[in-house]
Amino acid sequence: MRKIYLSNTPRQEALEKFLSGVEIPRRIETEAVAKSLGRVTAEPVFARLSMPGYHAAAMDGIAIRAEKTFGASDQNPLVLDPVEDYCNINTGGVLPAGFDAVIKIEELQFLEDNRVEILAPATPWQHVRAVGEDVVAGELIVPARHRLRPPDLGALLAGGITTVRLLAKPKAAIIPSGSEIVDPGGERGKGSVPDFNSTVIAAYLQEWGAEPSIHSIVPDDPDQIKEAISAALEISDLVIINAGSSAGEKDYTCTAIEDLGEVFIHGVATRPGKPTILGQARNKPVIGLPGYPVSAYLSLEWFVQPLIFRCLGLPLPQRDKLPVILGRRVVSEIGVEEFVRMTVGFVDGRYIANPLTRGAGITMSLVRADGLLVIPANLLGFEQDETVEIELYRPQSQLRCNLLAAGSHDLIIDLLATAIKERNPQMNLSSTHLGSMSGITAVGRGQTHLAGVHLFDPETKEYNRPYIRKLFPHKKLHLVNLTYRMQGWIVPAGNPDGIKMIGQLADLKLSFINRQKGAGTRLLFDHLLREAGLSPDQIYGYAREEYTHLNVAAAVAAGTAQVGLGILPAARAFDLDFIPLVEERYDLLLSDSFYNSPAAKLLLEIITDPTFHRQVEAMGGYSMRDAGQIIE
Amino acid sequence: MRKIYLSNTPRQEALEKFLSGVEIPRRIETEAVAKSLGRVTAEPVFARLSMPGYHAAAMDGIAIRAEKTFGASDQNPLVLDPVEDYCNINTGGVLPAGFDAVIKIEELQFLEDNRVEILAPATPWQHVRAVGEDVVAGELIVPARHRLRPPDLGALLAGGITTVRLLAKPKAAIIPSGSEIVDPGGERGKGSVPDFNSTVIAAYLQEWGAEPSIHSIVPDDPDQIKEAISAALEISDLVIINAGSSAGEKDYTCTAIEDLGEVFIHGVATRPGKPTILGQARNKPVIGLPGYPVSAYLSLEWFVQPLIFRCLGLPLPQRDKLPVILGRRVVSEIGVEEFVRMTVGFVDGRYIANPLTRGAGITMSLVRADGLLVIPANLLGFEQDETVEIELYRPQSQLRCNLLAAGSHDLIIDLLATAIKERNPQMNLSSTHLGSMSGITAVGRGQTHLAGVHLFDPETKEYNRPYIRKLFPHKKLHLVNLTYRMQGWIVPAGNPDGIKMIGQLADLKLSFINRQKGAGTRLLFDHLLREAGLSPDQIYGYAREEYTHLNVAAAVAAGTAQVGLGILPAARAFDLDFIPLVEERYDLLLSDSFYNSPAAKLLLEIITDPTFHRQVEAMGGYSMRDAGQIIE
Repeated sequence: MRKIYLSNTPRQEALEKFLSGVEIPRRIETEAVAKSLGRVTAEPVFARLSMPGYHAAAMDGIAIRAEKTFGASDQNPLVLDPVEDYCNINTGGVLPAGFDAVIKIEELQFLEDNRVEILAPATPWQHVRAVGEDVVAGELIVPARHRLRPPDLGALLAGGITTVRLLAKPKAAIIPSGSEIVDPGGERGKGSVPDFNSTVIAAYLQEWGAEPSIHSIVPDDPDQIKEAISAALEISDLVIINAGSSAGEKDYTCTAIEDLGEVFIHGVATRPGKPTILGQARNKPVIGLPGYPVSAYLSLEWFVQPLIFRCLGLPLPQRDKLPVILGRRVVSEIGVEEFVRMTVGFVDGRYIANPLTRGAGITMSLVRADGLLVIPANLLGFEQDETVEIELYRPQSQLRCNLLAAGSHDLIIDLLATAIKERNPQMNLSSTHLGSMSGITAVGRGQTHLAGVHLFDPETKEYNRPYIRKLFPHKKLHLVNLTYRMQGWIVPAGNPDGIKMIGQLADLKLSFINRQKGAGTRLLFDHLLREAGLSPDQIYGYAREEYTHLNVAAAVAAGTAQVGLGILPAARAFDLDFIPLVEERYDLLLSDSFYNSPAAKLLLEIITDPTFHRQVEAMGGYSMRDAGQIIE
Repeated sequence: MRKIYLSNTPRQEALEKFLSGVEIPRRIETEAVAKSLGRVTAEPVFARLSMPGYHAAAMDGIAIRAEKTFGASDQNPLVLDPVEDYCNINTGGVLPAGFDAVIKIEELQFLEDNRVEILAPATPWQHVRAVGEDVVAGELIVPARHRLRPPDLGALLAGGITTVRLLAKPKAAIIPSGSEIVDPGGERGKGSVPDFNSTVIAAYLQEWGAEPSIHSIVPDDPDQIKEAISAALEISDLVIINAGSSAGEKDYTCTAIEDLGEVFIHGVATRPGKPTILGQARNKPVIGLPGYPVSAYLSLEWFVQPLIFRCLGLPLPQRDKLPVILGRRVVSEIGVEEFVRMTVGFVDGRYIANPLTRGAGITMSLVRADGLLVIPANLLGFEQDETVEIELYRPQSQLRCNLLAAGSHDLIIDLLATAIKERNPQMNLSSTHLGSMSGITAVGRGQTHLAGVHLFDPETKEYNRPYIRKLFPHKKLHLVNLTYRMQGWIVPAGNPDGIKMIGQLADLKLSFINRQKGAGTRLLFDHLLREAGLSPDQIYGYAREEYTHLNVAAAVAAGTAQVGLGILPAARAFDLDFIPLVEERYDLLLSDSFYNSPAAKLLLEIITDPTFHRQVEAMGGYSMRDAGQIIE
């Protein structure tokens, strides 16, 4: 039996056990104030000098003796002689000895021979910036455990402080482990996995105020893992091993930590993130992070960030929260706390959120996410249209301008995302690819701004309109053409099976890779099947689904499928052959309120822009001849 | 006539004129992905490789041929032989050729001779991570104008991207100018001003994504200023001169920019920040910032930050806003947009904000500020208890835990600030020093959590209680002793005037420096005057007020006053002599709701802690013998 069963400790309990079991040792260092931005003070800092260091004029004007001006009035103007009665002075200038007030230049009448006339008395010390008005010697400038911001640096320097005692950045060692792991820039043989996790972990640590260092990759060898941890402990304040924390046969991390110290927790009741190891060795924290990227990064945030912030004496930053309406049902399992990455948009006056792919291995789900939905362990999930609170990855002000795109996947949607951002930096296009049918439903129900659709209706021989009319007969929606694009067979280079007709797929028993239900391309395939008098069970692989054209092409390129149906640029991305079959119309469906918004105006501007047309057509297989034409 | 009058252009109008007149030139550079955290993409980035690059097991278990398992059930278990029927596989392992599904280890029965038994069929491609599941070649990873976050770096590396085209950081030259300006670490002669502004400006620019460089200090000489700007333009994308933008006789900045290019704006209708110059030379932005620190930093944020963010194609970050109740009236002038730094606390279930000192020269007002109140040009200000919206400098979650202290100033309050932060990093002590009387009013009215008070009542010979009873006879408030402290004469070292008795101040016509109305120390002085049968007009300088003990000592140290009344550590901070007069009781007044909060418990823990007592008593002139004793 090679299986080690992981525990199922609730996240909060695991964190408390970890934090009470070990801490990052605090070190203090001295640094120049000018180099201390963002760093944390180790001690309270008191001013050494006063600023200003002398009595200074607070206005441009003249320095005078207040006593001399008593009695001056409109009826009884007072004439002052230079040198004896007054000196010219600019803002910041030294108040000369014996003078005790400043009269503003605006209040002076200039006479001959440099004499000036005043019409009102001055009060002693008026318009004088007293010694220490900004910072006074002995005053507290910043307390201990304070993260230094730009104006703090100014106040320190003003107070005569040029070096400051800081909490040293915790030194964090990152040890990538696994015999399959290779350098991220290196050759990728079959079965090798590039180590991109270390770069991400280091980037998070850097943002949190630690000093990360990425160590050499360690193969799956118990002795080498132990040695690497041991060596890292010598020069670091905490050690992170990634991965080897699941329970596969070659996972030696847990044993290594046990041998060197103590494992507090192996397995937390979360998804993703379960196979986390929390322990200590030589009184320093040692963490085994899961190998899957999303698991690793979430686990890092749950368990390492609090450790670092506690060491620096800073409050843990809280993400803003936002109540949103769920565009789709989200199910979960009892007993597991689940973390779902979400896109968010402001549709018809409400914030709507839709879940992204759930897989722990999908880094792109974090790249695309606008927020995170946490489903507590005691819930089975949430229903569509339910209001839930999510943690925000982007500021709410930006989500207000987020465009939500659903429906069919096309590479033009990616180009649109960039074109929109270039024209209006506030805006962002968040898209989820669920297929044309779901896209229509989402627009009709007010869950998204727009959807790409390409649904051929065999009865009427028309695209999109029949489906929309059937689903939402009474709703005012807008259909605008985006492009015409060529669909065809995606086959290995040289088309070894000589595919031309759909009948060959059945005859040659070719392994096919299909698209998901509701996708326009799948409906097209079904239509082609019916036309040829074939049934799905005659196609090997009919049940195997991918969600995008590129993923279909990837399967063909990997040799796990011999043919797929999709668009030309997808075939090109993998140097595959493309056998054109049919040109189809690809439209955008817009809700009525969105159609009348400035954002839609910008969108239509882009899709009718000849520069954008050239960009799209360069990908191959597209015609933008009717782009922007309103169909309904 | 040496006066140049400044224009009074509204801020928004000035910004639009500036932004439409000139922009920072965009440059592109290539950087390693691992070094690109926080940088901005110049182009959309598409994946070059797929991740995973092969079909991989998504679970620990065995790889099988799905077809072979059809028909397996509880009633009809299927036995699989190693090598021929299955291979062991760990998460991430390569699916061997010919195999098309994975069965999880949990679903296996282990038999003898390495054979395994299954009780259910597998579906093709179950638990298989398909090629490109995370990132598929050709897919858009990030659009152009995207600020790279940690997971973005991971997705780029996963997609086979190791270098990325970025928008170069705009190079910003900072030229400190003024003949009075010296290096911040250098000697401070009388009339010299340390250049701390450049460090602060550079720190802000760095935070905003620019690359600042601080140039040499330029004296007030028209040719040298012009030369410095001209040289900076050669190597920079924008040039900032600080200061020389007000209209004093030696302000040559404006003329210099006019000579080299064009001045769009000289003078904006704001307070602080008015003397700002916005212009261009050689098609690059040139900005003259005001000399006063707060003016300079606000002006930088109004006019330089939008320029940088536009160049980087990023949305301008918005500060969170919060509706607060004003603890005090805030007046303003019609025609001027005013920016008031505020402290904020959560008192009795409401967010209460109080203004800090208004002076443009007070860097400490930015250090202490929790938020910023913007008073529009068309308003005369806001009334006490009015609800206004402020921009937040700290997250709301932290302000929720902010302790607001008002009332008398004592150095122990500074020590408390540090002690609180050390025990609970979430907490922060924001204090405004308005004197004991205002402190009692603020606590009684629910505008602050606590106040330091030391008011002697000559009739009852008692401290504090008589005043509180008179002001709030029916309110439940709590009075807790903090310390006993020695008040005395603060005089130059060696006590040259031999001061002992108050009568000498009048007899010798000594120049006195007083405290503000409502301060306990001022009431003490008035009491001493009455006891000696003296009247205020017999004291020279009676009307001259400072707000803290340290500022009183600073005036004596500067020689502009010969005597002040205050506490020992203030005298010590300036190496002055201290003639003890009277030991007074200094209490803390707490509102009822605060008294019963966990924060107050923490506060009382600190002031009864012997370590804290030692710290306080080391400053001199304090006795903590009754600290924490509840008086009422």
